Amino acid sequence: MLYIIGLGLGDEKDITLRGLEAIKKCSRVYMEAYTSLLSFGLTSDGLSTLEKVYEKPIIVADREMVEEKADDILLEAQVSDMAFLVVGDPFGATTHSDLVVRAKKLGVEVKVVHNASVMNAIGVCGLQLYRYGETVSIPFFTETWRPDSFYEKIKRNRSLGLHTLCLLDIRVKEPSLESLCRGKKVYEPPRFMTINTAIEQLLEVEQNHKESVYNEDTTCVGLARVGCEDQKIVAGSMKQLLTQDFGPPLHCLVIVGETHPVEEEMLEFYTVDNSSKQT
Amino acid sequence: MLYIIGLGLGDEKDITLRGLEAIKKCSRVYMEAYTSLLSFGLTSDGLSTLEKVYEKPIIVADREMVEEKADDILLEAQVSDMAFLVVGDPFGATTHSDLVVRAKKLGVEVKVVHNASVMNAIGVCGLQLYRYGETVSIPFFTETWRPDSFYEKIKRNRSLGLHTLCLLDIRVKEPSLESLCRGKKVYEPPRFMTINTAIEQLLEVEQNHKESVYNEDTTCVGLARVGCEDQKIVAGSMKQLLTQDFGPPLHCLVIVGETHPVEEEMLEFYTVDNSSKQT
Repeated sequence: MLYIIGLGLGDEKDITLRGLEAIKKCSRVYMEAYTSLLSFGLTSDGLSTLEKVYEKPIIVADREMVEEKADDILLEAQVSDMAFLVVGDPFGATTHSDLVVRAKKLGVEVKVVHNASVMNAIGVCGLQLYRYGETVSIPFFTETWRPDSFYEKIKRNRSLGLHTLCLLDIRVKEPSLESLCRGKKVYEPPRFMTINTAIEQLLEVEQNHKESVYNEDTTCVGLARVGCEDQKIVAGSMKQLLTQDFGPPLHCLVIVGETHPVEEEMLEFYTVDNSSKQT
Repeated sequence: MLYIIGLGLGDEKDITLRGLEAIKKCSRVYMEAYTSLLSFGLTSDGLSTLEKVYEKPIIVADREMVEEKADDILLEAQVSDMAFLVVGDPFGATTHSDLVVRAKKLGVEVKVVHNASVMNAIGVCGLQLYRYGETVSIPFFTETWRPDSFYEKIKRNRSLGLHTLCLLDIRVKEPSLESLCRGKKVYEPPRFMTINTAIEQLLEVEQNHKESVYNEDTTCVGLARVGCEDQKIVAGSMKQLLTQDFGPPLHCLVIVGETHPVEEEMLEFYTVDNSSKQT
């Protein structure tokens, strides 16, 4: 049996009783590390906190390991119970469908233990989840690569009055281009896009396209570390949010569409001027 | 302090350690009963299972109580720790923004403990969450009230190739019209819309509008009891799903948009012919 267990968004306390029970049955516990390592405080210390609460050693599986050794993990799961831990929900922002498909093809039974993910926890800012359109991802721009397909999607959402959740780029354990050329992998330090960078890129793309999809006066909500004890939520114009310091990752951004009165009341608590009073 | 605590989707084991810890600190524990009572097995027995795991008595707060007595609950929360338990996530399909707004206005500190909700757990069927458009609600049709605003929304989603999550009507503790006329509330038995009824209504609306938004050959995924031990997921055409028995509530339905290869592989496991082999 392969258990794919969501850990939620905050720390070791966000696992469910069901998830914890499953871990305790498993002969081996892997944890995916390639999406949200930092948000979970997974320094070597962070990991031992998890191990203490879960009462099991955890094998950190980075992107390479999951991609290259998945079949080994799954072969083990044919004969004993294995756990694969995932930050957030197993089918949240980063989907683990591929692992499930491989498992099922090998005849391995799969059980999923759900948890919160940014895709629903985002509701905390007060904008109703059913009023969101398609979610977009904003990748880090480089000198030569400035993809902007999100612009068209935001345009559609806004034309329908819908909110847009923007997931911001995460780069963990990316081999550096230079090292790839030399044939030996050396990894770049992890990078997490800030709300500020996201807004700069969004405004640059609007400048290029000039379709008035949004501008620096468009209301947005910046959310940092959603679901963590020290989460920070600020609502304001793009211009206002550009100068806010949201602190450590992970960040995400909502471009606000048409709002209902209850949504407006909630946003009011998070506006730039009120956000210092947040509890 | 008011803790609003998501219980997740299955049973008493789906609470998080963080949620459980909060409950144990609280002097009084309320549980909202007006959305998803049945799915949580909250017979008088179900409740005592929760009370046993949570080690606290639970006061079931129905819709009337929450609407009429919220301020009493909040006044208590000004002086001691109170918990308000919510099936799913506090800001999932049913939002509790209103309670938060009232609390903040009274100066009551609010802490939210997130959990899985149908809005992210739906990912289990293999369709990627970021490929969903606006979520729609399908209400029970009556002789005189057959609202179909969902049709326009589904049309937009489909024109963009997006999937549509259809949340199906829940009627719990609704005063009967007859009893309201007599001035004394008598409640109708709870009703939960099945996937079959939803598809019948959808096809009726298509018949009326004739805009070819979907038809009985359109691929859908029916999901019953998502996140529970006995969840059932079947993919097939509307016509095929019409004759499936999905069993007890809660049900929901996804109208499938354009699919990517990994999505197709996942759906394959759930097609009508394969679904009997489901684990």
